[in-house]
Amino acid sequence: MIIVMNAPTTDQVNRVIEKLTQVGLDAHYLHSCGKTIVTAIGDSTACNEKQYERMPGVDRVLPIVTPYKLVSREFRSDNSLVQVEGVCFGGTSIPVIAGPCAVESYEQLKESALAVKKAGAKLLRGGAYKPRTSPYSFQGLEQEGLDILRAVSKEVGLPIVSEVTDPRAVEVMAEQIHMLQIGARNMQNFVLLKEVAKTNRPVLLKRGPAASIEEWLMAAEYIMAGGNDKIVLCERGIRTFESFTRNTLDLNAVPVIKQLSHLPIVVDPSHGTGNWSWVGPMAKAALGAGADGLIIEVHPDPEEAVSDGPQSLTPINFRQLMQELTSIAAALNRKMS
Amino acid sequence: MIIVMNAPTTDQVNRVIEKLTQVGLDAHYLHSCGKTIVTAIGDSTACNEKQYERMPGVDRVLPIVTPYKLVSREFRSDNSLVQVEGVCFGGTSIPVIAGPCAVESYEQLKESALAVKKAGAKLLRGGAYKPRTSPYSFQGLEQEGLDILRAVSKEVGLPIVSEVTDPRAVEVMAEQIHMLQIGARNMQNFVLLKEVAKTNRPVLLKRGPAASIEEWLMAAEYIMAGGNDKIVLCERGIRTFESFTRNTLDLNAVPVIKQLSHLPIVVDPSHGTGNWSWVGPMAKAALGAGADGLIIEVHPDPEEAVSDGPQSLTPINFRQLMQELTSIAAALNRKMS
Amino acid sequence: MIIVMNAPTTDQVNRVIEKLTQVGLDAHYLHSCGKTIVTAIGDSTACNEKQYERMPGVDRVLPIVTPYKLVSREFRSDNSLVQVEGVCFGGTSIPVIAGPCAVESYEQLKESALAVKKAGAKLLRGGAYKPRTSPYSFQGLEQEGLDILRAVSKEVGLPIVSEVTDPRAVEVMAEQIHMLQIGARNMQNFVLLKEVAKTNRPVLLKRGPAASIEEWLMAAEYIMAGGNDKIVLCERGIRTFESFTRNTLDLNAVPVIKQLSHLPIVVDPSHGTGNWSWVGPMAKAALGAGADGLIIEVHPDPEEAVSDGPQSLTPINFRQLMQELTSIAAALNRKMS
Amino acid sequence: MIIVMNAPTTDQVNRVIEKLTQVGLDAHYLHSCGKTIVTAIGDSTACNEKQYERMPGVDRVLPIVTPYKLVSREFRSDNSLVQVEGVCFGGTSIPVIAGPCAVESYEQLKESALAVKKAGAKLLRGGAYKPRTSPYSFQGLEQEGLDILRAVSKEVGLPIVSEVTDPRAVEVMAEQIHMLQIGARNMQNFVLLKEVAKTNRPVLLKRGPAASIEEWLMAAEYIMAGGNDKIVLCERGIRTFESFTRNTLDLNAVPVIKQLSHLPIVVDPSHGTGNWSWVGPMAKAALGAGADGLIIEVHPDPEEAVSDGPQSLTPINFRQLMQELTSIAAALNRKMS
Repeated sequence: MIIVMNAPTTDQVNRVIEKLTQVGLDAHYLHSCGKTIVTAIGDSTACNEKQYERMPGVDRVLPIVTPYKLVSREFRSDNSLVQVEGVCFGGTSIPVIAGPCAVESYEQLKESALAVKKAGAKLLRGGAYKPRTSPYSFQGLEQEGLDILRAVSKEVGLPIVSEVTDPRAVEVMAEQIHMLQIGARNMQNFVLLKEVAKTNRPVLLKRGPAASIEEWLMAAEYIMAGGNDKIVLCERGIRTFESFTRNTLDLNAVPVIKQLSHLPIVVDPSHGTGNWSWVGPMAKAALGAGADGLIIEVHPDPEEAVSDGPQSLTPINFRQLMQELTSIAAALNRKMS
Repeated sequence: MIIVMNAPTTDQVNRVIEKLTQVGLDAHYLHSCGKTIVTAIGDSTACNEKQYERMPGVDRVLPIVTPYKLVSREFRSDNSLVQVEGVCFGGTSIPVIAGPCAVESYEQLKESALAVKKAGAKLLRGGAYKPRTSPYSFQGLEQEGLDILRAVSKEVGLPIVSEVTDPRAVEVMAEQIHMLQIGARNMQNFVLLKEVAKTNRPVLLKRGPAASIEEWLMAAEYIMAGGNDKIVLCERGIRTFESFTRNTLDLNAVPVIKQLSHLPIVVDPSHGTGNWSWVGPMAKAALGAGADGLIIEVHPDPEEAVSDGPQSLTPINFRQLMQELTSIAAALNRKMS
Repeated sequence: MIIVMNAPTTDQVNRVIEKLTQVGLDAHYLHSCGKTIVTAIGDSTACNEKQYERMPGVDRVLPIVTPYKLVSREFRSDNSLVQVEGVCFGGTSIPVIAGPCAVESYEQLKESALAVKKAGAKLLRGGAYKPRTSPYSFQGLEQEGLDILRAVSKEVGLPIVSEVTDPRAVEVMAEQIHMLQIGARNMQNFVLLKEVAKTNRPVLLKRGPAASIEEWLMAAEYIMAGGNDKIVLCERGIRTFESFTRNTLDLNAVPVIKQLSHLPIVVDPSHGTGNWSWVGPMAKAALGAGADGLIIEVHPDPEEAVSDGPQSLTPINFRQLMQELTSIAAALNRKMS
Repeated sequence: MIIVMNAPTTDQVNRVIEKLTQVGLDAHYLHSCGKTIVTAIGDSTACNEKQYERMPGVDRVLPIVTPYKLVSREFRSDNSLVQVEGVCFGGTSIPVIAGPCAVESYEQLKESALAVKKAGAKLLRGGAYKPRTSPYSFQGLEQEGLDILRAVSKEVGLPIVSEVTDPRAVEVMAEQIHMLQIGARNMQNFVLLKEVAKTNRPVLLKRGPAASIEEWLMAAEYIMAGGNDKIVLCERGIRTFESFTRNTLDLNAVPVIKQLSHLPIVVDPSHGTGNWSWVGPMAKAALGAGADGLIIEVHPDPEEAVSDGPQSLTPINFRQLMQELTSIAAALNRKMS
């Protein structure tokens, strides 16, 4: 860390250096043009950098080491490959996760699953436990939804991705579901992150709507530090002043994450835009940005969907989009299958 | 809800009206200047308003009924008074909750408690379970922290407020703590909200850093719909582009909440600004805006605090601030005690 | 507009209806479940919708007609084609505007122009008047810069795009420059918009960093209402809480604009990200999103650039990017030339 | 500036140091734990800090010197006092600027002026040139509006504040108006800032809706560097995701500005909230935060106002608010007159 001091006394400088030395940091001191700079390099986790801001004479503290370790490119320079029942994220292929927002019935899920598989999707999504803004909205079919997911998964032959919201349910969910999704609103639910870290299941970690890229990587660090390195990040839109779209899908995060981290990143254009007619363009944009996968809401009858119908594609829309994505992937020397 | 249609066919209009009628809504129809408007009034919880956006001919759907019910001024026109061991939020008095960010030791908490009580604080805050951005940061003393809180509370005679982060811990925490705090990052942790709703303890519900006022009220609605109406809202800053302050304390929320809801609202200038030197001005501003209380971080030795030292007041700063607040409260026909 | 009233008296309703009727609007009235709704359809420009919010009994006013007219898809259903010296925006081709942030010297611009032309750029960019956050930063070569631009344009055979910042300079600039750029910070400089509206030159209208899509279209409406319909919109990133990237390039705006308006839209990944290493991925993403063009900063020696060096591509980077874009454009049934 | 390098070669370090030395900076070099840090102190305006980010081996560049000079507390430790025709901003008194958003007629302005003067306002506001989002909205009475302002100012005895939007009009406006307002949308209209810098008139510089505090101070620096040091800053709300209020009035900016700069700061709760019923609470909050003045919209008949009626106080509301503010100012050891 770097500590900038404003016209400090010798005592003030000494006090800072002493404090740094106590925690085992190597402190250096420079003075020029009325500014004094104390530089301390070492294990940033050994000290609370912010504390130095309160010391007399200190103007600002500038961190120089990234706070995440295990998820960083410095820790691992190659791309991580995350396998979900044989489907691989992080390599040349760009797997698509598709399905309805919520599991509503066996028939609805089966129809969705058959349609998305035929169009080329590699995993089936569907929510059994739904975090909803309103207590009066449909909260999911819960265990019944999980049973339907498992049955359809087996019949259709697609691994399933579903959201876990309750730390008490993680262990049971991990037995039934192939990839555990941490929803955007739970990205900093550290109690939940610590639980999924204990399982062997791959985790789809959605970015919180107000989470900085660094905080998102820190949430992944919780999972990886807890023992589970099978993490796929998912950009799904951030909250900004622009309210015409439901969220602002931040595709900039894709190349930034590829630079900072070895983890794969997928994009959710359905939540990212909130409107089915913009899902196609933004899915294609995600490929251009370098995404390692997509997660797209598809519903056999979006008008009747109990949740997120406006942003769901019909099976026909989805099939057509997959064809377009196949061409673009080829132009990028990647492939959709 | 109001459904705006763009040059629809008669069939399209009829289909919309039919769908509204099926869910028991009273639908009306108007046509003028190329726009068609279908108005439907009734219980908005009976239908999924967004679904109508997908219907052919529909341009937009405008909700007209607020989604929260029990927490609204329409439900209850008087201010709710929330009592915590004899301390009342929502009336003429403006109680102050004060204490360190995290419980670090018996001595640290005892010293803090004595100081803040002497200066006029009515409740003691202190975190035993700390949600931290980094897995490598201090995570709180956990049960040991709770034990210290209880001991100090009894000795000093201040009720305690502490954060609960794990739904599995709610029942036990509720036995030990006088007011349960839901932290900003857990505002939409609906699993947790449902658990605190089952207790009899007053809840301090912090606004999420990216939560709209409406979403915040919906989170309170979860608690109230679950059976617990002892809710105090807490504005603690939202996330904006301005990064000079840790958060942007949104004092506008105070008069807005007072208009929309009967619940008391307190303000946290410590997290709202992130810097002790701005805590005083923003605490005074909060009173001007109409806040029903304050929550302020005070630490006997902020330089050595393990968490949030830069935003903590010293006991001396706090005592002086309380004196200033007392004058302002009087000018507003309220009082600090 | 729709006026929602909360348990109004008959007098209050009559007063609203009377006021609407006075300005020539057709008012209708509905009552159900304690809510009263007054619907008024007609020319929204005839009245000040917001005024109705102050009337007794009125809860909210909901606009239903978009405030922009001439730039809307409703006004013109086909894509507008904007020609700049034979280069066409809005059709199948995707023209690229490239060059340095600021004109620094004849040699620098000539070298840039030759390089970007060879790689396939269709227009040359370069700032002669630079709006800079600091008064102490380089403010551009001004008239000398314009002279260099004209000379190089003629020699190399590329039309030029340059920013105009002063309403007093618009007429003279319009004689010398082929496409006038309105910078992001001037998007709502209405005095300037009215001046460019009087010229015959195509205008590149950048989105303001805090401008909603609707406000951006309203700025275009100023130009079109002033008599100039040769407008190309340019998404260049909005300001959000995420500060890792210089701005948050909002590619969602591309499909949204294509739906709302007939105007072409180009994307600026250089300002949108602020870092040359993310320019390539976001340029490719822009094509996927449906952009009608790109504007990219290229500098022969970015390390020595006086402005925006960190986000500039070298000529070699640019040439390689153009090749990749060519493949993607083909996959999208478009072309770069 | 501090340059953080990631495992650089000796050559890369030498190149950075050489470049710093060339521009006259004093460079130092430290190496520890795989990080290399080059520290350079000197006149930051002498070099383009961002350029160093492109150099091989460089990870990040951290500025340590604030970019504003003349407006900083370091330049002048005492509060600046800005006088407008005998009314002083920056001292113990808290002057209030009040009046209608737009000048509509002699009668409207005269009535407003008499009412606000009687209630204790010290300056009269009123827009003659109105920047409006829509080209179809009322754009102000222009020169006729100025004539009315001057007549009423003389008759009633209140100095006037009015917005200037066109650099061509600055000289003429400065002859007629006592305080020139730079509106929020023009905060980074540097052409306009340079013109007002040439006048002797005090300037009311509104913060742009997406401007950081640092950018706002840089805009003030343009004016002060141009020769005019009579600057009053005005916080009027920033743009955030929260859309319930028109803007998010950022009162945190008040203590932050008082710490960073010697310039006075006033608050505009009318634009900051957009709703008259929240103006009172936020005006009181502004005093608590330490504001040096207020600017409040007052209209004799807000329902009929051609602009911003919903956020205007009636004369009666305003009189009552002034009484409340007087009590609060006294509690803060300040006064409203």
